[in-house]
Amino acid sequence: MVPAEPVKPMKAVILAAGQAKRFGKFKPLVPLFGLPLIEHTILGLRRMGIKEIGIVYNRKELKEYLSKKYPNLVFIHNPHPERENGYSLLLAREFATEPFILAMADHYFSTTFFERRKLRDNTIFVSTQCVDPEEATKVKVRDGYVENIGKEIDEYDYFDTGMFFCTPDIFEHASQIQKDVLRLSDIMKLLASQGKLKYLVVEDFWIDIDTPESLKFAEQKIEESIMKGEDGYIARAINRKISMRITRAIAKYSWSTPNALTTVSLCMGLFSALLFFLHLPLLGGIFTQLTSIIDGCDGEMARLKRMSSKFGASFDALSDRYVDILIVLGLLYNISINWISILLFFFAVTGVILFSYTWHLTEIRVRFGGRDVRLFLIFLLTLPLPLLGYSIPALLMSLGVITHGGALFSLAKLRLRAQ
Amino acid sequence: MVPAEPVKPMKAVILAAGQAKRFGKFKPLVPLFGLPLIEHTILGLRRMGIKEIGIVYNRKELKEYLSKKYPNLVFIHNPHPERENGYSLLLAREFATEPFILAMADHYFSTTFFERRKLRDNTIFVSTQCVDPEEATKVKVRDGYVENIGKEIDEYDYFDTGMFFCTPDIFEHASQIQKDVLRLSDIMKLLASQGKLKYLVVEDFWIDIDTPESLKFAEQKIEESIMKGEDGYIARAINRKISMRITRAIAKYSWSTPNALTTVSLCMGLFSALLFFLHLPLLGGIFTQLTSIIDGCDGEMARLKRMSSKFGASFDALSDRYVDILIVLGLLYNISINWISILLFFFAVTGVILFSYTWHLTEIRVRFGGRDVRLFLIFLLTLPLPLLGYSIPALLMSLGVITHGGALFSLAKLRLRAQ
Repeated sequence: MVPAEPVKPMKAVILAAGQAKRFGKFKPLVPLFGLPLIEHTILGLRRMGIKEIGIVYNRKELKEYLSKKYPNLVFIHNPHPERENGYSLLLAREFATEPFILAMADHYFSTTFFERRKLRDNTIFVSTQCVDPEEATKVKVRDGYVENIGKEIDEYDYFDTGMFFCTPDIFEHASQIQKDVLRLSDIMKLLASQGKLKYLVVEDFWIDIDTPESLKFAEQKIEESIMKGEDGYIARAINRKISMRITRAIAKYSWSTPNALTTVSLCMGLFSALLFFLHLPLLGGIFTQLTSIIDGCDGEMARLKRMSSKFGASFDALSDRYVDILIVLGLLYNISINWISILLFFFAVTGVILFSYTWHLTEIRVRFGGRDVRLFLIFLLTLPLPLLGYSIPALLMSLGVITHGGALFSLAKLRLRAQ
Repeated sequence: MVPAEPVKPMKAVILAAGQAKRFGKFKPLVPLFGLPLIEHTILGLRRMGIKEIGIVYNRKELKEYLSKKYPNLVFIHNPHPERENGYSLLLAREFATEPFILAMADHYFSTTFFERRKLRDNTIFVSTQCVDPEEATKVKVRDGYVENIGKEIDEYDYFDTGMFFCTPDIFEHASQIQKDVLRLSDIMKLLASQGKLKYLVVEDFWIDIDTPESLKFAEQKIEESIMKGEDGYIARAINRKISMRITRAIAKYSWSTPNALTTVSLCMGLFSALLFFLHLPLLGGIFTQLTSIIDGCDGEMARLKRMSSKFGASFDALSDRYVDILIVLGLLYNISINWISILLFFFAVTGVILFSYTWHLTEIRVRFGGRDVRLFLIFLLTLPLPLLGYSIPALLMSLGVITHGGALFSLAKLRLRAQ
């Protein structure tokens, strides 16, 4: 039954037949940064390229909730959850006829776990990282294989993370164990004792969501992972705080995909530009800043829902640039045209594109010239309405200075770094 | 003497003591795409991070030529070239006190050969590629080691490429051979017979420059490798043909570095823009097209001299964009200003940056909107001087259409590809 060559698994089984209610809900449905725990794993498995996911469940409400959102899931009912998760796995025998990923529904796994890998033999995903070492299952390894596994073993190298790669022959091994209450760890112990359990080290965050503290800790970790390290000053101080709340609030809806949020941000941006063309600079400035805040959500959602894509990143970047230049054109529309205003306009409009262009070229982030700072400047400088005749030229000038300055600054930085 | 761990070699020895005059010059000095053969190897070794290069030479003119251009080279004189290249290697003993790369001066190696690799034991670089299999030295391998090596062996797996990684213990082995005329192949045969010669497969072009045909063939290969596959229509049809000749003609000079050529192209471009501001659109157009041709040289030189860098690529891209937008501003300066001309200007100037921006984002090349096509359009449309009042607005419009169209086209292509 073991395939001759390593394969990328195309199926997965999630064990979600636990009964315990925690935090007022069944564990797999507890929201983690706005998104039910089990959905983090479902989205991660999809990211891995897995098409068919089987869910072993007991409670009807889990099936009802998931089947609406994910019509392609296969549901396998476990009428005896008290017989434990090893028994749950056995019930997936008819579904799992080819190599598959096995995951616990009450664990959160960071994105590294869902990288596409070719594997061959039964493999336990282990890590040296562990939030609660006392409660965790430990793993002792030797020569590429697991030697011993259990909660109470003294000598160990890694922690069991709750994710596995299995081949269908695991069901034969499991059915050899004559126990009414069958734990997954019993099956893994058997495999280990026969020298048939390999391991794969994944050095990234994972957690068993078991207590309110672990839930809180996981949310902190997710928050860190979906924030960009390269935020500008305004993004860090203002925008991100609001956009993260929005992302969290809307994460549970199916429509809140990264590309949908980019479209929302694009429309808001175009509307802001329109307000400038309608000679409503005050409103235009306010909507510009709102656009800047909403602009953070698509990236956050892409990381939260593990839906990052090259198209999404390009679509976001290009639509941001179109909005930026239309807003600058809208600003020009509010002042009189002469060679000075045209030069200022030229300076600003080329700068806002060249700044981002240079960032992509050099991969050096200049925090003072980014979109967050620029849109905030527009918001601020359009506020004192009676001064518009002065403030808009000053604004165009400032936009030009920080963007062209930023572009040349990052090029110079790259040059110095090369030496 | 063998180091315990794999290392990146920091020294190299080039064997250049051959006497034969071919093509009217000593082989190492024969120009290959404008650059003496041995310099291709010197620049490749530098690319590898090698600081100290020793040249075993016989002819004074080789030393004279190289010492002027590369003051850091170490020259090792071989007064007996008739004792062959194995004897030449022995002379490098005092220089090569740590692991080193060994290369034949009369071979051309493509860039893959100069990748930074960690190696440990004496290693021959082999390939299944070979231009002249009859003349080549063949290599038979087994279990990671060379089993047999020679010109006349019947069974073989690879060809000897003329590049090696050696540890200083090779000198001890070599000095065991009691021969007046000592070939490198004798030393390698000895190592192989003792099971001490490893091999590394490099599947890329290499050639022993031995005949006018091999020289011509190598030049063709180099030409292919320094042309960009992603050229636009005008670049392919016109510009590249001229720029390649320029690159070839100036390759031999030390000053012709990629960044110097980018600076030349930048200055020419700024001069073209200036001509538009001086209301000399005809001259401006001509210089714009000249700039477009010269713009190809920096990239070609970077690939020819193996001097590509992230700074160089960014400097080139950013200075091209600045020239582009200043030329567009110069065009605007030649027509009357009103809201229509401003909108056309806005359309064109944002397009020329956004087109390149999108290319970097999506990595999808749209051949009809690139710089080659744009600058050629400017050249063409400024030719009929009396029509300038019409042709410049039409030009701005065309620039806008092909660039914005190209940007959205590549985004759409990316979207379709993802599905």
